Amino acid sequence: MTRQLHLNAFLMNTGHHEASWRLPESDPHAHVRLEHYVGLARTAERGTFDSLFLADGPQLWNSVGQRPSGALEPLTLLTALATATRHIGLIATASTSYNSPYNLARKFASLDIISGGRAGWNIVTTAGADAARNFGLAAEPAHAERYARAAEFLDVALKLWDSWEDDVVVADKAAGVWGDAAKIHPPRHRGTYFSVEGALNVPRTPQGYPLLVQAGSSEDGKRFAARYAEAVFTAQQTLQDAQAFYADLKSRTAAAGRDPDGLKVLPGIVPVVGSTEAEARAAERVLEEHIVHRHGVAHLEGLLRLPPDTLELDAPLPSDLPPESAIEGAKSRYTLVVELARRERLTVRQLIGRLGGGRGHLTFAGTPEQVADAIETWFTRGAADGFNIMPAVLPSGLDAFVDHVVPVLRARGLLRTEYGPRQTLRERYGLPRPANQYTAGAPALV
Amino acid sequence: MTRQLHLNAFLMNTGHHEASWRLPESDPHAHVRLEHYVGLARTAERGTFDSLFLADGPQLWNSVGQRPSGALEPLTLLTALATATRHIGLIATASTSYNSPYNLARKFASLDIISGGRAGWNIVTTAGADAARNFGLAAEPAHAERYARAAEFLDVALKLWDSWEDDVVVADKAAGVWGDAAKIHPPRHRGTYFSVEGALNVPRTPQGYPLLVQAGSSEDGKRFAARYAEAVFTAQQTLQDAQAFYADLKSRTAAAGRDPDGLKVLPGIVPVVGSTEAEARAAERVLEEHIVHRHGVAHLEGLLRLPPDTLELDAPLPSDLPPESAIEGAKSRYTLVVELARRERLTVRQLIGRLGGGRGHLTFAGTPEQVADAIETWFTRGAADGFNIMPAVLPSGLDAFVDHVVPVLRARGLLRTEYGPRQTLRERYGLPRPANQYTAGAPALV
Ligand SMILES: Cc1cc2nc3c(=O)[nH]c(=O)nc-3n(C[C@H](O)[C@H](O)[C@H](O)COP(=O)(O)O)c2cc1C
Ligand SMILES: Cc1cc2nc3c(=O)[nH]c(=O)nc-3n(C[C@H](O)[C@H](O)[C@H](O)COP(=O)(O)O)c2cc1C
Repeated sequence: MTRQLHLNAFLMNTGHHEASWRLPESDPHAHVRLEHYVGLARTAERGTFDSLFLADGPQLWNSVGQRPSGALEPLTLLTALATATRHIGLIATASTSYNSPYNLARKFASLDIISGGRAGWNIVTTAGADAARNFGLAAEPAHAERYARAAEFLDVALKLWDSWEDDVVVADKAAGVWGDAAKIHPPRHRGTYFSVEGALNVPRTPQGYPLLVQAGSSEDGKRFAARYAEAVFTAQQTLQDAQAFYADLKSRTAAAGRDPDGLKVLPGIVPVVGSTEAEARAAERVLEEHIVHRHGVAHLEGLLRLPPDTLELDAPLPSDLPPESAIEGAKSRYTLVVELARRERLTVRQLIGRLGGGRGHLTFAGTPEQVADAIETWFTRGAADGFNIMPAVLPSGLDAFVDHVVPVLRARGLLRTEYGPRQTLRERYGLPRPANQYTAGAPALV
Repeated sequence: MTRQLHLNAFLMNTGHHEASWRLPESDPHAHVRLEHYVGLARTAERGTFDSLFLADGPQLWNSVGQRPSGALEPLTLLTALATATRHIGLIATASTSYNSPYNLARKFASLDIISGGRAGWNIVTTAGADAARNFGLAAEPAHAERYARAAEFLDVALKLWDSWEDDVVVADKAAGVWGDAAKIHPPRHRGTYFSVEGALNVPRTPQGYPLLVQAGSSEDGKRFAARYAEAVFTAQQTLQDAQAFYADLKSRTAAAGRDPDGLKVLPGIVPVVGSTEAEARAAERVLEEHIVHRHGVAHLEGLLRLPPDTLELDAPLPSDLPPESAIEGAKSRYTLVVELARRERLTVRQLIGRLGGGRGHLTFAGTPEQVADAIETWFTRGAADGFNIMPAVLPSGLDAFVDHVVPVLRARGLLRTEYGPRQTLRERYGLPRPANQYTAGAPALV
């Protein structure tokens, strides 16, 4: 069989385009309707996607005036979706900066058990002061410190998930012995950020632990990914940039002593499908016309860490923006946006138009064949192991992708035509079940 | 209609009796089987119970050698059960000592939305050093401090749940205005234990916030309940004690400026049903014979905060036990156990037998009519507004209660025969939807 594409459906209320909610077809209450998400999950499963994904942050995003704000907590929503689906993976975002390892490890273990091994964790460090101020901090912790805490968080979580060997349960009813306490391994962790003494109160799960996903592309982010991540989401604007990122991450993974195939790189794309190219472009334009530029300017000023009212709509970005090293927020997203504006000589208005669809992710607009061509090119030319599919409008954009692009990908032998027997999410991504670090004879975790 | 009983099904893997897992009928893996809990939830719904309840603590309980240990995280499991049920309330235990208000308020709001207003929160402060050591603390915080933190936690959570007025969403697609930002109220809380600046990132929920349930019976516990709780779980060994507790809590609630009917008192009972009284007693005896006394002694020593190997199986409790005021753990449970042993002059062995079934809760063993008689007596004589039903063995004990006791209660007009139209959990408990503290004209929260 030829190498298979991995597809992840990145779900976001009425779609990734910030103006999507204004279309006549869109339900402005979709973000809190379970049925909306159940429908999307079933469509993605019809398209034999590997997984669903929900982004998140522990703060109220955007201005409520501007677009649908607030979201159901991802682990909660994905647990409800676990019971409405059978095969698809369930990837929830959760922050290492604003959770404790014991509670979070427990929740992912619980979802992994309930879903039969379909849980994944998008590990984020959470940029921004708004989140920090919801957890007793006065300001955003420094970027390097957030990643240092993230690494220790992972070490503790991995110990907790391994704190039960797979065969603890003896269930000897006659002797009154339920389990073998010698196979329980309390972490007894004392570190810089965390002290965690006892074993997890959930047994080891079908996958051992959730699929570990990461989405930071700064230097620290890539170092973290090379060490821990099994899948990486990334925003890339050109084939060349994507190829460079892909090669860099694979070689870092190898340098960390891991199989580079054990880390899948999934750039995000916004597919806009039409029966003709012109129709697809027209759909893009309709969305762009619904953008409220005043809001876009404020959002861009936030991302670039500029004071309010700095940017002018019909001028280019200021030429004296600071280097990425001075940014304590989302470093790689900052660089991507600045480079995109400079490379294409965009005004602020044009840049906002470009970002409206995918907030930095690439839009592939065209016929189903054209979209499939772009996917195939990136996939076969060393830029991607699969894609994070980010429909501009939901549910219609996911329907269009599954009904029109998926059949083309299947006909080309790039995508499975059915799931076959039940598998864990990690098995779908072609990865082995991790050995338990405490089990005699198991290889040590790298 | 006569006053109606409120019934809550307290679910616990193979049952509340510590030896239940050893019976031939019991599945020693039930604690991690979703199907097990789905079956129990459907049975409780068939019995038109008000709610399901899951206890919890962020630490590995008991010895793994002894009985099924570990559990799925309650909010996660109840979210999965929300999709498998339609009417029944879903009460999850979560600790105010080992969570942050923003994350926990968000999760309960998400479950309340997903379940259509069926979420409840059993608010606990979590006794014991094992939990503390999983969250960076060297020892258990003092009892009074745990309750002080709990009160501030509730104040913050109530602000977060009210941080969206009910009618934020405008959804004016033409004007590009999604919501009215003036109806968002960031808590801007700066307190002793927490600083939480921003609004919740979930809209106000069907119930406003989850039903607030509490289960501490110490002086601090009762003061907390009178201020915040809408339902109280309690362990009471005699009708007289239960009546005194009931009267005390109702008058405290009135003294706090609340309607005493706004707080429902639900003692826990372990129903053991047989077609004759002798059969019920025999079933009790079989369970008692399966207790491993060595484990019971260790458990009792932990509860009484005695050093290991202090207690002798065939002697009474030591006469020089400290007063409740010296106990920083679960105060009221300590007193209940000590008083039970003294009142009934029990040896340690006998006490362990008595506690095996309900860990301090009362067992009602007998025919369906006898169990219904006991329930009716407590209900009509000022000891209870309903009961926390804690079957010794699951699923069989819940089946027996629903198939045999529920019809008797219905025939006596004490329990609904069907749910009728969908209601929120709070409506089932006969309580009004709380007003939003920030909405003009709303009565202030007490
Ligand atoms: C597809 C994708 C999804 C992301 N989802 C989230 C998210 O849900 N929450 C979050 O805080 N950050 C999210 N991020 C941001 C990254 O975690 C990271 O903070 C950002 O890319 C900047 O990382 P860096 O500072 O390492 O460059 C996402 C990034 C990408 C590419
Ligand atoms: C029915 C019932 C259920 C309880 N469930 C829990 C629980 O899940 N987790 C927990 O930490 N404590 C639980 N408790 C204990 C109480 O929250 C409280 O800690 C205990 O009753 C002692 O409280 P006090 O110190 O105020 O007397 C429960 C108590 C009762 C009566």
